[in-house]
Amino acid sequence: MKTYTEVSNLRSQKRIEIINISSQVRQVVNRSNIRDGVVLVYSLHTTTALYINQSERNLETDLEEVLGKLVPQQNNYKHNAIDNNADAHLRAILLGNYVALPITNGDLDLGVWQAILFVELDGPRRRAFITKVIGE
Amino acid sequence: MKTYTEVSNLRSQKRIEIINISSQVRQVVNRSNIRDGVVLVYSLHTTTALYINQSERNLETDLEEVLGKLVPQQNNYKHNAIDNNADAHLRAILLGNYVALPITNGDLDLGVWQAILFVELDGPRRRAFITKVIGE
Amino acid sequence: MKTYTEVSNLRSQKRIEIINISSQVRQVVNRSNIRDGVVLVYSLHTTTALYINQSERNLETDLEEVLGKLVPQQNNYKHNAIDNNADAHLRAILLGNYVALPITNGDLDLGVWQAILFVELDGPRRRAFITKVIGE
Repeated sequence: MKTYTEVSNLRSQKRIEIINISSQVRQVVNRSNIRDGVVLVYSLHTTTALYINQSERNLETDLEEVLGKLVPQQNNYKHNAIDNNADAHLRAILLGNYVALPITNGDLDLGVWQAILFVELDGPRRRAFITKVIGE
Repeated sequence: MKTYTEVSNLRSQKRIEIINISSQVRQVVNRSNIRDGVVLVYSLHTTTALYINQSERNLETDLEEVLGKLVPQQNNYKHNAIDNNADAHLRAILLGNYVALPITNGDLDLGVWQAILFVELDGPRRRAFITKVIGE
Repeated sequence: MKTYTEVSNLRSQKRIEIINISSQVRQVVNRSNIRDGVVLVYSLHTTTALYINQSERNLETDLEEVLGKLVPQQNNYKHNAIDNNADAHLRAILLGNYVALPITNGDLDLGVWQAILFVELDGPRRRAFITKVIGE
C-alpha cells in the first residue's frame, strides 16, 4: 500500500469556465503505478469547484445558467465589501472543491459518459489542484 | 492494508426515485473483512446521485420538490437538443455522484438517523455502482 | 500504511451557525503521525453539513441567505408533519455531510484561503464528527 501525489496547474481564460481534466488525472494515476485504490482530486482555491458528469458543451452552458439563477452574480452580498466575488465562493460551496474516484486495474473507474470537470468561477486565473492516489 | 471492490446493480422503477442502499453497502463492507478504513460508494452514471441523510418517505418527496424548483424539468436547456434529460444531469451535479464513509470495527460509521441514498433522476433504468473499501 | 480515528464534539449556539474546525482537524492529523494520505471529516447527523471554503463572517451570512432562498425555512414540507426541520435536512443534503482532504508532510493540504467549516442547520445542539486518517 502506498501513496502518490502530484500538483497540476491550469490557466483559465474566462470568468466562468468548465475544463475537462480527466486525461490529466488519468496520467497521474498511470504514473503512480497504483493498480487498486482511490484518487482524490482536490482544488486549493475557494472560487473553483470540481464535479463528475458528462463533458458536453451545451450541458456546461446549462450549468452556468443554473448557477446564475441559484446564486446571481450581483445580489448585495456582504462579502463583496471585502472582495467582489461572493457569487464565486457561494457557487463553489454548492458544488464542492474536490472529487474522489475509485481506481481498478490501474485506471480511473469512470463511467462511459463521465468526465472530471474543473470549474473556474472567478477567472481568468492560474489555478492548481492536487491529485493524491492511495492504494496498492 | 488492503482494498476490496464490488459492483452492485439496481433497477429503478420511476423517473425519479430515492433508494436506500445502506444494507447493500454494509454487506459489501462485511464481505471485505476490512475492520478499519474508508468506503467509497460511486455511481457510474451522469443522471444519478448519492447522498447520506435520513431515509424517510416524506423527506424524499420534499427533496424531489426542491430539485424540481431549483432545476425545473423543462427550461429550454441547450443539452436537450442532444438528449432530453438536462434536468437530470444538472440535479446530479448539484448532489454529487458518490459518497465516502468511515469504517470502524468492521462496520459503516453511520449516525443513528443516517442512510446511504441512491437517487435515480432519469429512470426507470438499470444502474450500477462501485463499492470500494480501503483499510486494514 | 495505517489508520487513525478520533470522534470530536462541539456545541452550537444558534439554529444556523458556521464553525471553523480546521485547527481541530489539524490537531487530529498531527496526533495520527500519518505523514501522507487522506483525511475524511464526517458528520454523524442529518441536519448538519461540512464544506471547505473561506472562513469569513460576511461570506457566512451570504451563505445563510442563499440557503434560505434555495430552501426556505417554511414551505409546507411533508417531513414537517414528523419533525419540524425539513429545511435543515434539505440544506444538509445540498451541502453534504463530510469532506475529504489530502495530507502531505504531516499536514492538511489546505489552500491559503481554505478552511474546514462545520454547518449547524438545526441548533443549538451538541454535535459529533469523526476524523478518520488513512495513510503512512
